[in-house]
Amino acid sequence: MPTEQEHFMAQALALAEEAAAAGEVPVGCVIVRDGEIVGRGRNRREEKQATASHAEMEAIAQANAALGTWRLEDCELYVTLEPCPMCAGAILNARIRRVWYGARDEAFGACGGVTNLFMEGFPNRPALVGGILGEDCRRVLADFFAGLRNKEKIDPQI
Amino acid sequence: MPTEQEHFMAQALALAEEAAAAGEVPVGCVIVRDGEIVGRGRNRREEKQATASHAEMEAIAQANAALGTWRLEDCELYVTLEPCPMCAGAILNARIRRVWYGARDEAFGACGGVTNLFMEGFPNRPALVGGILGEDCRRVLADFFAGLRNKEKIDPQI
Repeated sequence: MPTEQEHFMAQALALAEEAAAAGEVPVGCVIVRDGEIVGRGRNRREEKQATASHAEMEAIAQANAALGTWRLEDCELYVTLEPCPMCAGAILNARIRRVWYGARDEAFGACGGVTNLFMEGFPNRPALVGGILGEDCRRVLADFFAGLRNKEKIDPQI
Repeated sequence: MPTEQEHFMAQALALAEEAAAAGEVPVGCVIVRDGEIVGRGRNRREEKQATASHAEMEAIAQANAALGTWRLEDCELYVTLEPCPMCAGAILNARIRRVWYGARDEAFGACGGVTNLFMEGFPNRPALVGGILGEDCRRVLADFFAGLRNKEKIDPQI
């Protein structure tokens, strides 16, 4: 029986798998208020050629539209990969109160991987828990990058 | 005779004034490549009720569309107020090579005010110069907040 956190992270993971199938770095995100999903997002950076189209930003934009406000203080955010500085900053700006992530990101993570923006003295400090379905979240990324390397071996032009 | 930096910051300042006239916290931004403006943005957070609609994010989205790519490595960014963590993170993600800002932000600044994301060990480190037309950039913000306080005195319902 999955916990509530595993249930919502599985939804985010399904979005990450959708991103992988579309050739995007597989990251997915859902935003939850009162036990209901109010925003979903997955990485669409290549599709849109938009710097900001990370999973969290897409989910925040959808939650903004659903709730009619830029303030998401009653919301919790689930994301398969530790947020980068842009997304961690957007979480701070939205006043999201709690963040659950799957895999840690030692290269770009701004919630402990490289730095921790939630501990830097900004006015709000979301609660933070990592490692929810961590192994599954890591695997979808590892499989994606292994697939890219194999493609390069077959066709070095890619 | 204004310098090149003052010339572009004046364009950002005009966008900040447009934001103030629309009742938004007055911040404006332009993105420049090869001496030409390829993206303009101003704060539209209240109008759109979108967490991400800061001046820099709007300008980055416009530059993405103009150039057809999420990578802005040949670009420089001018903004009237020191970027917040979200916008500084987007600047890192876009690989923007240089940032010129006007006023420092001791409450939310992520380029020295509270923290400095450009010095944290992420893969790229944009060059950074503050204080371009700093006094003018500070004044447009101070006037806006003084106006809000006066309104509250006249009508405490606001």
